[in-house]
Amino acid sequence: MDLNADLGESLGSWKMGDDASMFRIVSSANVACGFHAGDPLTMLDSCRVAFERDVRVGAHVGYRDLHGFGRRSMDMSFDELFGDVLYQLGALDGMAHAVGASVDYVKPHGALYNRIVHDEGQAEALVAAVHAYDPGLPVLGLPGSALLRIAEESGHPVFREAFVDRAYRPDGTLVQRTQEGAVLHDVGAVVAQAVRLATRGEVVAVDGTVLPVRADSLCIHGDTPGAVQMAAAVRAGLEEAGVGIEAFA
Amino acid sequence: MDLNADLGESLGSWKMGDDASMFRIVSSANVACGFHAGDPLTMLDSCRVAFERDVRVGAHVGYRDLHGFGRRSMDMSFDELFGDVLYQLGALDGMAHAVGASVDYVKPHGALYNRIVHDEGQAEALVAAVHAYDPGLPVLGLPGSALLRIAEESGHPVFREAFVDRAYRPDGTLVQRTQEGAVLHDVGAVVAQAVRLATRGEVVAVDGTVLPVRADSLCIHGDTPGAVQMAAAVRAGLEEAGVGIEAFA
Amino acid sequence: MDLNADLGESLGSWKMGDDASMFRIVSSANVACGFHAGDPLTMLDSCRVAFERDVRVGAHVGYRDLHGFGRRSMDMSFDELFGDVLYQLGALDGMAHAVGASVDYVKPHGALYNRIVHDEGQAEALVAAVHAYDPGLPVLGLPGSALLRIAEESGHPVFREAFVDRAYRPDGTLVQRTQEGAVLHDVGAVVAQAVRLATRGEVVAVDGTVLPVRADSLCIHGDTPGAVQMAAAVRAGLEEAGVGIEAFA
Amino acid sequence: MDLNADLGESLGSWKMGDDASMFRIVSSANVACGFHAGDPLTMLDSCRVAFERDVRVGAHVGYRDLHGFGRRSMDMSFDELFGDVLYQLGALDGMAHAVGASVDYVKPHGALYNRIVHDEGQAEALVAAVHAYDPGLPVLGLPGSALLRIAEESGHPVFREAFVDRAYRPDGTLVQRTQEGAVLHDVGAVVAQAVRLATRGEVVAVDGTVLPVRADSLCIHGDTPGAVQMAAAVRAGLEEAGVGIEAFA
Repeated sequence: MDLNADLGESLGSWKMGDDASMFRIVSSANVACGFHAGDPLTMLDSCRVAFERDVRVGAHVGYRDLHGFGRRSMDMSFDELFGDVLYQLGALDGMAHAVGASVDYVKPHGALYNRIVHDEGQAEALVAAVHAYDPGLPVLGLPGSALLRIAEESGHPVFREAFVDRAYRPDGTLVQRTQEGAVLHDVGAVVAQAVRLATRGEVVAVDGTVLPVRADSLCIHGDTPGAVQMAAAVRAGLEEAGVGIEAFA
Repeated sequence: MDLNADLGESLGSWKMGDDASMFRIVSSANVACGFHAGDPLTMLDSCRVAFERDVRVGAHVGYRDLHGFGRRSMDMSFDELFGDVLYQLGALDGMAHAVGASVDYVKPHGALYNRIVHDEGQAEALVAAVHAYDPGLPVLGLPGSALLRIAEESGHPVFREAFVDRAYRPDGTLVQRTQEGAVLHDVGAVVAQAVRLATRGEVVAVDGTVLPVRADSLCIHGDTPGAVQMAAAVRAGLEEAGVGIEAFA
Repeated sequence: MDLNADLGESLGSWKMGDDASMFRIVSSANVACGFHAGDPLTMLDSCRVAFERDVRVGAHVGYRDLHGFGRRSMDMSFDELFGDVLYQLGALDGMAHAVGASVDYVKPHGALYNRIVHDEGQAEALVAAVHAYDPGLPVLGLPGSALLRIAEESGHPVFREAFVDRAYRPDGTLVQRTQEGAVLHDVGAVVAQAVRLATRGEVVAVDGTVLPVRADSLCIHGDTPGAVQMAAAVRAGLEEAGVGIEAFA
Repeated sequence: MDLNADLGESLGSWKMGDDASMFRIVSSANVACGFHAGDPLTMLDSCRVAFERDVRVGAHVGYRDLHGFGRRSMDMSFDELFGDVLYQLGALDGMAHAVGASVDYVKPHGALYNRIVHDEGQAEALVAAVHAYDPGLPVLGLPGSALLRIAEESGHPVFREAFVDRAYRPDGTLVQRTQEGAVLHDVGAVVAQAVRLATRGEVVAVDGTVLPVRADSLCIHGDTPGAVQMAAAVRAGLEEAGVGIEAFA
């Protein structure tokens, strides 16, 4: 099973997260590309460390919004988003290239991620941009999202992710962050959800329903207090359960 | 002889220059990469038009300074400039890649161009970044500059440019823009200088000295009033003198 | 009757509009504050010219989006928008202050203008920010908008504007720009609408209905080809009809 | 004696320093204005806390360079710097105004601070901008700097600062940060230097020379590990020595 996390989110003098620790836990790093976070040096360092530790590099593309960290939904035309995604992807791939690595997948960040669960226009722009760059470069997203559906319909490869610390509704969507219980904080519960997702391909929804969830990757977090310990526990729990951690093929 | 000009310098709703006309005149386009000018869509369009018209694409890399159009000299560490150049180069190459083209050379813009005539630290950072990206990707610069010297010393390919509308001093450097007579405005004089540079490899300095100038490319301008007419006259004059216009190899 | 237009929309080396001409036509200038357009020098020059020509200065506040010229709707929290409006307003007022003038009103720009016709949360944030700065500083907006309703409910002064070149629907809202006939291009029709708005306080909707429209100001445009001639014709037409052009009190 | 420190240096999701603690120690807060650090909400919060705790607010103006945190020297024309300083000053004063406070002084940040120790053109632009805004608003700077000399020559009020944790050369200038021993790390030595500056108006240079230093304010730091403890020790040491901590008049 693959473990992915958002890394490379510092900006100049401002540091975020404990990337050094997280790079020892994940098999795939979603590296910010400068629009919502990440300066060129941080991008370069992230690519270098990823290469050294055999971690896959994903282009974590977002809205051009440093002040909002890419967490504010924006209207954008197809052409604008196409251009912005291509720009970020090329920039990170150039960094990766310079250290002997390459971008292995693309994952939308923050408000863009959430928006293209439903917004078909923006989802199409993202898929088209990635496809124009490399028709074999997978996009990583939420099962059931417009993003993955549109990618699949156009023959573009996809990877699906599940969340180890988010509560699921019976229909397979996530409980909104604004609702109580949306995020699991108990280490035992999180590890259990991770193991069940990885070994049985299922998750227990908030009402007790057992849902099948097909995931190529599990998303973990590293940028909040205690997150590294949680992430380490997830990895250890998976390994104890006999699940090897390796990047999706 | 190659003709290069700065193109793709619009930003969103702000347009600059008459790119449509200039793309019919030049053989090499220095395309802004988003730091001093150029938004992703403009970059993409520039790459597309260049590809269609068989014009070479150069990454016109500059300081991160939209408000000053990259014309304000900045202190930067080696690592910062290395990262900024690599980022811009990768971003533009991604755009070029998406339309079937590629970046064919790198030219520094504005204050960066002027600074690395002398500043060895910044020149080294630029050369190192281009080299890390592709050791065969030429840098285009001023003969006698630290940039070209450092590139050559490290075995990195270079192209040399001369200016059709700038007055030269007897030592081969340009008369500073702040001095009177620094820029030639007479079409006849500009065309004559272009033809002499292209056919004889020499230029007449302000004191009448005839200087040898080895140039792989002639730099022309398209972003001032009357510039397109001047550029067209230079091209016509060169062709009349039997000089074919084509990108440097 | 007051005539307002968007001015000061240049950014560094990129120029927009013919401000010199427009400052001779309008009585109120909506000056961009640096977030969607406008650099500090342009702001300062706009304040200076406005002061010299006795034109009122409005803070034309927008989303932080130079690449989209503030024309892309963005989600923002109350606090974020409150802060952004206050920042822009203070910055422009500082400029005005330095040349002996002051900001006389606030008008939202572009996507923010359109959004707070309906979005109560963002409308409240804008009104709150202006109120915190100066409870007597009017906001200029569209009759019937959430913005003006919320301002009035909180006792904050408002000015209402009408459009001389936009088609109205029978309910008093504007025909969307995406629909044919949304924008009037015939000078005679535009002047006639301006005169009717100014002298009778009414407009003829697309279906022929005559609507009462209470307007303190007429919005004209100066940043498109032919716009200055149109604006001059509107002013001349109003004066011929005996309508004096002066800033709202 | 006044104690000043750089505060309000967060940007959106990126936090810097322990402002809550530092606001209990200083009497003057140099608040970043959005160009090198500081978003509008952070500015507003800083003004609010300063007002509540009776701490003076200084506009900490810097180069427009978020990626370099304003620590990279930039060429700027008089007009450009004049405009940028005025913009930042007005923006912060608007924030202060909204919470019942006001900007009490202006201090240049980072590379701008260092540059206008010597660069007369940039010093003149800063002084002119502050003067245009308010001829009675003091600038805070380094004794012997071009900034303070130019301000005084134009009759503009100044405040002088000394550094509790920097080594001085016999001529009264600071030992460069790149040299060993430039920054004092021993709490006892720092407190001793603070007390000597405050009580006797003198400092011991690196060669043992005792220099007279006239300071209206002592600069302390809060954004490095251990800085808050050091700052608290300085305040405690001053109070033990009978020096009251209060903002300069």
